[in-house]
Amino acid sequence: MTETKKAQIGVTGLAVMGANLARNLARNGYTVALHNRSVEKTDALLAEHGSEGDFIRTESLQELVDSLESPRRILVMVKAGAPVDAVIEQLEPLLDEGDIIIDGGNSHFPDTIRRERALAEKGLHFVGVGVSGGEEGALWGPSIMPGGSAESYQHVGPLLEKISAKAPQDGAPCCAWISTDGAGHFVKMVHNGIEYADMQVIGEAYDILRSIAGIEPADQAQIFAQWNETELDSYLIEITSKVLAQVDAKTGKPLVDVILDQAGQKGTGLWTAQAGLALGSPVTAIAESVFARALSSSNPAARQQAQEQLPAGLIATTGIAAGDPEFVEDVRRALFASKLVAYAQGLDLIARGGEEYGWDLKLDTIASLWRAGCIIRAELLDDIMAAYKDQSPVNMLLAPQFTSLMEELVPSWRRVVAKATAEGVPVPVFASALSYYDGLRRDRLPAALIQGQRDYFGAHTYGRIDAEGAFHTMWSGDLSEVNAADIHVH
Amino acid sequence: MTETKKAQIGVTGLAVMGANLARNLARNGYTVALHNRSVEKTDALLAEHGSEGDFIRTESLQELVDSLESPRRILVMVKAGAPVDAVIEQLEPLLDEGDIIIDGGNSHFPDTIRRERALAEKGLHFVGVGVSGGEEGALWGPSIMPGGSAESYQHVGPLLEKISAKAPQDGAPCCAWISTDGAGHFVKMVHNGIEYADMQVIGEAYDILRSIAGIEPADQAQIFAQWNETELDSYLIEITSKVLAQVDAKTGKPLVDVILDQAGQKGTGLWTAQAGLALGSPVTAIAESVFARALSSSNPAARQQAQEQLPAGLIATTGIAAGDPEFVEDVRRALFASKLVAYAQGLDLIARGGEEYGWDLKLDTIASLWRAGCIIRAELLDDIMAAYKDQSPVNMLLAPQFTSLMEELVPSWRRVVAKATAEGVPVPVFASALSYYDGLRRDRLPAALIQGQRDYFGAHTYGRIDAEGAFHTMWSGDLSEVNAADIHVH
Repeated sequence: MTETKKAQIGVTGLAVMGANLARNLARNGYTVALHNRSVEKTDALLAEHGSEGDFIRTESLQELVDSLESPRRILVMVKAGAPVDAVIEQLEPLLDEGDIIIDGGNSHFPDTIRRERALAEKGLHFVGVGVSGGEEGALWGPSIMPGGSAESYQHVGPLLEKISAKAPQDGAPCCAWISTDGAGHFVKMVHNGIEYADMQVIGEAYDILRSIAGIEPADQAQIFAQWNETELDSYLIEITSKVLAQVDAKTGKPLVDVILDQAGQKGTGLWTAQAGLALGSPVTAIAESVFARALSSSNPAARQQAQEQLPAGLIATTGIAAGDPEFVEDVRRALFASKLVAYAQGLDLIARGGEEYGWDLKLDTIASLWRAGCIIRAELLDDIMAAYKDQSPVNMLLAPQFTSLMEELVPSWRRVVAKATAEGVPVPVFASALSYYDGLRRDRLPAALIQGQRDYFGAHTYGRIDAEGAFHTMWSGDLSEVNAADIHVH
Repeated sequence: MTETKKAQIGVTGLAVMGANLARNLARNGYTVALHNRSVEKTDALLAEHGSEGDFIRTESLQELVDSLESPRRILVMVKAGAPVDAVIEQLEPLLDEGDIIIDGGNSHFPDTIRRERALAEKGLHFVGVGVSGGEEGALWGPSIMPGGSAESYQHVGPLLEKISAKAPQDGAPCCAWISTDGAGHFVKMVHNGIEYADMQVIGEAYDILRSIAGIEPADQAQIFAQWNETELDSYLIEITSKVLAQVDAKTGKPLVDVILDQAGQKGTGLWTAQAGLALGSPVTAIAESVFARALSSSNPAARQQAQEQLPAGLIATTGIAAGDPEFVEDVRRALFASKLVAYAQGLDLIARGGEEYGWDLKLDTIASLWRAGCIIRAELLDDIMAAYKDQSPVNMLLAPQFTSLMEELVPSWRRVVAKATAEGVPVPVFASALSYYDGLRRDRLPAALIQGQRDYFGAHTYGRIDAEGAFHTMWSGDLSEVNAADIHVH
């Protein structure tokens, strides 16, 4: 009897992300079985890259399953949503107990929770894996956030860690078990939400530097390159410098000036904001970033007409000399402070997700996974890692290293927001993040008045600062107040 | 054969909202059959209010169904969510084709869409009705927003219009058919979202007047009473004056100062923000209001520690004399401008909901329903009605009457936001609404830079201002650009 060589992992769905992950696995020494609904894609991949490693060509899911060593690992790389369910439905009867289906797409975490439960009942493992880094990351080393049972991680962890990005700081793989079921996709979702905010704050800084300090894109490219030598050091700042330096071949203008200012989006940002709303976790910087993209693109007719008709109503402020270096530094600090808030809010949401869904999450580990391979990779992640290492600040900003950093950043941040407000430059995230910061540190919030209003019109009751329990005021003129325990409360 | 008198409508679920709607129907001359899971509540209602009209007591859903004239109208007043499905499941086998189930609770509109479809397949009508106005409204005349088939409205419309609030301006009932299936609950949801923003902007105005202009609650009660004589005239401004005038019997302090500043919420506000995210409709003022409540209440430990540790970093600004009337007027205008944005955003979301779900919505009618009976009733609603009567502005702010109003409001608004920013007073909605306003009227948004970033790291492509189509730049240093039609785009 001859034993055919078996593959250690199978990949179904060979669009660019699936193909690149398959190539990454093969390059790292694994034998990879390939499958795609239409075999042409499989053959194209083999024709172009078949020599890069050990691949097994299969034409059907049955062949794919038969080609794998046990327990089988099958990485599903199809479009999030119904296609994932369809592949699971086809795979499930072909698999044996203990086999592992890995979903490496951008699935919405509640789907991952549902799928994991359903498959666990049938003795199968389902591993929802957040993969960040785009096509290049998939090929050369992405940031990988796997959820699922601890047992399944024993089988898939070594492979995923092998193909992941390695942090330049310590060489650690940017892959670690997050927690059960939907935890990996949840964390990946929040990563993307932070990415939205990260991009928006850069956009606001650019807009302010351009409109208020009169700095043209080519000069801003230099400024962003310099900022990339500061605490802002990050992939997004780096590529911003390159985007701003780009000249349009057709017109000779800065490319950014010929790009239509209507931003697209693919859903993970809005899921993050929706999760924040559902969990009562104020991710204002992320929500504002998502809304800013929607505002830019959703109703061009309204924007056009608003430009022509809405009064600017600008107010006088002190002038800023073109390129004023102090103002530029103020903007850098405002950007950094707003970015810190976005991270604080995102990590807060992750922590609450953990409480809500029963995941035991390690925020320092999660921060460590974002240090390489993904879009938000930044020097800042090291500081965040450190902030959660052996400490559990109730909010990231309350870790001592960030609290003392704010001392330096906040006055600049206020100057920039006040200036943009006077000059009519929209700063949805700079301003919202600052209001969050001021709300967090405020001794008395007008929420007390809101509770009074709610009790007035809806008998919703309120708490008191000097007593336990729920109280309701009889608002019809007299001053009496009754403890809600004694009244019928709705 | 004796004919027993039949009821024109049945009500199941006799908690306060159900009981009050039943009494309202009876007071208006309808014979109302009553049912509650536990008959004690039915008997208590009859004992206390049985003499107010014609009630029929029933002990089971079968009895309730038997007591009704055909087609049967059954108003279900149980807690939103699974209880509604449970009652529907019990009722359905007892009903005949053409009978009508009316859900008067705060159901989430996707549930209403689902239920209407399922029951329509069985020949039953399902009418999802938004009811606003709390307990008092339910009893004396609420604002009513019914969705469902046009045919079902023939049968329920007259009753609902009869018991609804009547607009003081013209006596018109605050009830009209909204559109099919979930339209009524959708519009009610957005109403509540606007209510959140309306309350938050009042809270921000109060906080600024207190912290920056040094005006104590008793004096603010006077100011809000005066504001209620201006365009701000509304129920919420009126009750704010009363809440601020209230003195705490126990301590002799202003009641607002002993109320715990942690705001509660019940879900419709966050649904509105989630819907805005899902539909790409920037409802920033509503989302910020929801997040402001969450910030106030979700993590008291973080607030406590932040108060003690986060640096304020205030910046110098010109002083405001205590009670400075010019500043007070600036704050009034900032409040009004922010409120206008909240309405513009809410109506925009309603319009988009209509497009998404195939509802033919009349924004002037919807505005007219909010003129009485509900929490956000305000003089402003007349102007909004007028703005959408015989016109379809692409955004409410672009109706001529609001555009010219902004001329007067915007400079004040900017001064107040800049001042609060300098002084560390959180203004999440004032500031967010202003950034929305500035974003809407801006000729070039930094969304262009974001599209450049997205194309750089993910080949997401971008549009150009001078050509149709999707473009991708080869970012590796040269200046070439390819039309995305020619390349593999992911």
